Amino acid sequence: MTGAFIAIDWGTTNRRIYLIVQGRVVRSERDDTGALAMAGAGYHEAIAAIRAEYGDLPVLMAGMVGSSLGWSDAGYVGLPAAIPELAGGLHRIDPRTAIVPGLCIDNRDRTDVMRGEEVQLLGAVAKGLVPRDAWLCQPGTHCKWAEVSDGRITNFITAMSGELFALLRQSGVLAHHLTGPVADNDAFAHGVAEGAGRDLAASLFSVRSLGVLGKLPDGDASSYASGILIGSDVACRLRKIGAAPVHILADAELGGLYRRAVLMLGGKATLVDSHAAFVAGITAIWDMSQ
Amino acid sequence: MTGAFIAIDWGTTNRRIYLIVQGRVVRSERDDTGALAMAGAGYHEAIAAIRAEYGDLPVLMAGMVGSSLGWSDAGYVGLPAAIPELAGGLHRIDPRTAIVPGLCIDNRDRTDVMRGEEVQLLGAVAKGLVPRDAWLCQPGTHCKWAEVSDGRITNFITAMSGELFALLRQSGVLAHHLTGPVADNDAFAHGVAEGAGRDLAASLFSVRSLGVLGKLPDGDASSYASGILIGSDVACRLRKIGAAPVHILADAELGGLYRRAVLMLGGKATLVDSHAAFVAGITAIWDMSQ
Repeated sequence: MTGAFIAIDWGTTNRRIYLIVQGRVVRSERDDTGALAMAGAGYHEAIAAIRAEYGDLPVLMAGMVGSSLGWSDAGYVGLPAAIPELAGGLHRIDPRTAIVPGLCIDNRDRTDVMRGEEVQLLGAVAKGLVPRDAWLCQPGTHCKWAEVSDGRITNFITAMSGELFALLRQSGVLAHHLTGPVADNDAFAHGVAEGAGRDLAASLFSVRSLGVLGKLPDGDASSYASGILIGSDVACRLRKIGAAPVHILADAELGGLYRRAVLMLGGKATLVDSHAAFVAGITAIWDMSQ
Repeated sequence: MTGAFIAIDWGTTNRRIYLIVQGRVVRSERDDTGALAMAGAGYHEAIAAIRAEYGDLPVLMAGMVGSSLGWSDAGYVGLPAAIPELAGGLHRIDPRTAIVPGLCIDNRDRTDVMRGEEVQLLGAVAKGLVPRDAWLCQPGTHCKWAEVSDGRITNFITAMSGELFALLRQSGVLAHHLTGPVADNDAFAHGVAEGAGRDLAASLFSVRSLGVLGKLPDGDASSYASGILIGSDVACRLRKIGAAPVHILADAELGGLYRRAVLMLGGKATLVDSHAAFVAGITAIWDMSQ
C-alpha cells in the first residue's frame, strides 16, 4: 500500500471523499455535490478546495465525474476487465489528478455500460469479500449484475429498476399510492411473487387496481411496488444465474430486500460490505498505477 | 334508436362531447377539459353549459368522470359483462344525467379495473366491428387487452406501457434521449425484438447504453424505446392469445405500432374504428336504459 491519496466516489447525486493512507481510510465525508449539482463547471476549484482541506495529495476519482455529463469523459474499458485494466486506462486530468474509466459491452447483439460500480465490484474481488468466480449484484437506481470469472468481470447487465420506482413515485397514476416507506413485509413478498411473472407493465398497474378495490392500503403500496420491480429484476437474472450464490453489495436495507427476493425465487444470496469494497478497489487501482 | 341525447366520453385529460340523434352523431367536439382539469368541482355548471349549447337533453357520460377523482364514483360491474350490465348499473346524478359504471376483476389471485374503455370495447361488439368471440386491444396510457366470449367481456388485463413511456420522457436518465417522435421504422422493430425478451427494466437501459456508445441516434431513440414497451406488452399477451386475431381499437398511428408488434411476434391483428365503437356502445347503453 503506497503512500497517501484522496479517493472520490463522485456519483450523479452524491460524492464521498476518502483520505486513504497506507490502504486505510483515515477520514471520510459525504455530501450532495454530485455531478448533476456541479452542472459541468467548477471541478478545478472543487478539487483545490478538497486538497486545501485534506492535504495536497494526488486525487483518484470514479463515477459520473468521468462521464460526458461530469468533468471529463474517462471513456470505457471493454470486457473482460479487472483492476489492471482500470489502472492501465486511467484518464489523467493532470499528473496528480485522474479518473477511473468505466466498463462497456459493445457487441453486435448487446450493449451495456457502467461507470463507478466497477471499482466496488472489483474491489470486493480484490479484497476477497467474494469468490473469484461469482455473480455480484449492486442494487440502486441502475441495478448492476456482474459475472466474475477468475477475478475478472466477464459479463454484466443493468436493470433500471430503482429509477422506474423513483419515476413512478414522482408523478403519474401510482404516485399518490406510493407515498409510504418500503419495508421487507408481506406486501413486499406479495410484490416479488407478482413481479416474478416478468410482465412488469401489467404487474405495476395492479398497485392501482388493488388500491382502488380497497385491497392494498396506501401504507403497503410502496413495499408492494418495490417488490414487483425487484422481483421482476431478480426473476430475469435467476434464469441465467440459477442456484449459484448472488453476492449483493449494498446497504443492509436495500441489500436485504434483494436478498429476500433472491431467496423467495429459489436462488442463494449473501450480503457484502459495499463501502469496504469501494475502498479496496480504489486502493488497488491506486497501488497498481504507481 | 330512441330520441336524442348528449354523450360525453370524459377522460382524465380530454373529453369528447357528442350530440346523438336516432343513433347518429350530428355534432361532436373535443377539448382538454378532462377530469384532472376539472379538479373535482364545477361539474353541474359544466353540464348546464353543454346543455345550453347542445340542447336541453339527457346526458350519458363514461370515463374518469365516474371515478373518485372525477364527479362522482360510478362504481364497477364485475365480469362477465356486456351492454345490459352497464345499462343496468348506471350511476344517476339526477333523472336526466347518468354515468356508466366501470368494470372490475376482483378475485383472490388477480385484480384489475377499467373505466371508460368498456363502452368502446362492447360498442365494437354491439356494432359487429369485431366477432362475438375475440381478443380486443385498446392501446393508450393504460393499454387494455380484453377477451370477449359470446359478446361479453370475460377477462381483461391492463399494462401501463403508455404511462411508463410518458414518465421516461418526462425525467430521468433516458429523458434527453427521448425527445424525438415515434415512427414505425427499423428502430421501432429493433425495440420490439428487444422488448419481447420480457426483461423490461434491463431492455429500457439499452436506450442509454446504445446512445452512449453512439449506436442509437437520439432521433431513433423514441421509436426504439416505444418498441421495447409495446414489444414487451405484446409478448406477454401473445403467450395467452396465441395465434387468435387481435382486434386493435385505436387511431391509425398508435394502432399501427401495436399491429406491427403483434405481427412481428407471430400473432394476427386487425385495426378497428375506435370512434365508431364508442358511439355504438354509448348508444346501445342509452337505448337499453330507456
